[in-house]
Amino acid sequence: MTFDFEVWRAASLVQVEQTLDRLIDAHSPANLGEAMRYGALGGGKRLRALLVLAASEAVSGNFDAALRAACAVEMIHAYSLIHDDMPCMDNDVLRRGKPTVHVAYGEAQALLAGDALQALAFEILTPDKDEIPSAVQAKLCRLLARASGSEGMAGGQAIDLASVGKSLTESELRRMHELKTGALLKASVEMGAACHVQNGTRASHMPYGLQASLAAYGAAVGLAFQVVDDILDVTADEATLGKTAGKDAAQNKPTYVALMGLEAAETYANELLEKALVALDACGLEADAALRELAIRLVRRQS
Amino acid sequence: MTFDFEVWRAASLVQVEQTLDRLIDAHSPANLGEAMRYGALGGGKRLRALLVLAASEAVSGNFDAALRAACAVEMIHAYSLIHDDMPCMDNDVLRRGKPTVHVAYGEAQALLAGDALQALAFEILTPDKDEIPSAVQAKLCRLLARASGSEGMAGGQAIDLASVGKSLTESELRRMHELKTGALLKASVEMGAACHVQNGTRASHMPYGLQASLAAYGAAVGLAFQVVDDILDVTADEATLGKTAGKDAAQNKPTYVALMGLEAAETYANELLEKALVALDACGLEADAALRELAIRLVRRQS
Repeated sequence: MTFDFEVWRAASLVQVEQTLDRLIDAHSPANLGEAMRYGALGGGKRLRALLVLAASEAVSGNFDAALRAACAVEMIHAYSLIHDDMPCMDNDVLRRGKPTVHVAYGEAQALLAGDALQALAFEILTPDKDEIPSAVQAKLCRLLARASGSEGMAGGQAIDLASVGKSLTESELRRMHELKTGALLKASVEMGAACHVQNGTRASHMPYGLQASLAAYGAAVGLAFQVVDDILDVTADEATLGKTAGKDAAQNKPTYVALMGLEAAETYANELLEKALVALDACGLEADAALRELAIRLVRRQS
Repeated sequence: MTFDFEVWRAASLVQVEQTLDRLIDAHSPANLGEAMRYGALGGGKRLRALLVLAASEAVSGNFDAALRAACAVEMIHAYSLIHDDMPCMDNDVLRRGKPTVHVAYGEAQALLAGDALQALAFEILTPDKDEIPSAVQAKLCRLLARASGSEGMAGGQAIDLASVGKSLTESELRRMHELKTGALLKASVEMGAACHVQNGTRASHMPYGLQASLAAYGAAVGLAFQVVDDILDVTADEATLGKTAGKDAAQNKPTYVALMGLEAAETYANELLEKALVALDACGLEADAALRELAIRLVRRQS
């Protein structure tokens, strides 16, 4: 039977959206739940969630754990966008074609909604039930926390802030993106793999080579994502992109396109795709079709 | 041998400060680590950390786990202060007698430092080593995440924001404080108790009655803390308090003093102390002297 990516994607998205909808309580105090839902539900490509689910499927992971991990990563991503859009950061008023959270709910509520989404991500990874082994819960928290913090996403954003108007070398730019977007994308793959459970009760000790190859796939995909993002900021129009286009250039932010030119950036994105697929081949997993398609579509996307 | 609280406190504080100093990396990218350290190190009463350590000692908990839990709770507390001080929230420029993080490092960096401290809290609770059983790691994350999020601290702050200039009933005010400050103080006690390990390998199943009594102690202490805070906002001067005094009244924020008057608030604080001590007695723990002294000193404090 051939793998139908679009069917897989559609079915996965339904589950992710439904689970996020169930996990983010609308009744949290003083409209906080409403602001959290506004920022986290019903939008986005859910690339991170799909990477978690695809990686978990490739290693026959625990589905409940994978679905929670997928939602947790999307909550972290959503909180980062909410905070990133705030006036003291990028000061963006439009996100996915609608007003950003601080525009809709005020800055203070946006700040709290982001904070509470981060907490919720770790809460849903540690349900008080035995179906998900504690070792899996703890490992998921560890991977997500490392990828989100000062040596991951937040650290990358700090470099981003500090480098506006500066010219970075390619290695400095890569370091920034490895942290800012790459760490969470890579962690998505690793978290999916961490859902593998042996004997129903304990986290498995996956062969080191397999873990390393999956991480290499995740790292290449994460970097490719950012290179393509930089390309689209130049080539796509606002309607397709659903956010303010040409913003990086206008803010004089360092990008791959600015650094190496459009054509070389496109070549680089393709090289990274190749690297991801080679790493995936090295895993020798049978059920890797979703991971494969995700990498390909991510590089060939138009928005 | 009688218990010397001051000796215990001094020794505990040294360990907490040293561990925080070790865990918050100064070399994180683009001064982010510096801002995190500025906001989290070298200040504060460390009440939450002391509650964790005291509760863990009372149940003979794993010390490494308790020290990590103590630092994690302080990181969450520190991040909440950093975000709370920001212009879009309380707009405070002074904290513990020095400029707040956004004054010293800029708003964007303060936002990221808070975000990264929250992530770091969960990261240090899930070390990749076997000495702390996975079940303990997962439970610590669960308790901390619940207490920090929309049904805990962040939710309480949202109510606080929404109630400036409004008159709350006592039950509304209590609900706000149970979430805003109470949840994390109560979680500190529960996290300490969660460090109890049976047979060296798995989290113990503590008798339900003991868990409930410790939680009741934590809840009473948490509420008492806030009532005393409201009293001190009126009675203490700025130099003793180390922060802007009289601010709640100036901002027309609902407080226990505003609601019930100074004398009744003082009576209420004493009643809560009594309640905490009764709950502690019900635990029937031998090594409860630190928990007992913490409750007493918290209510009798002058700053």
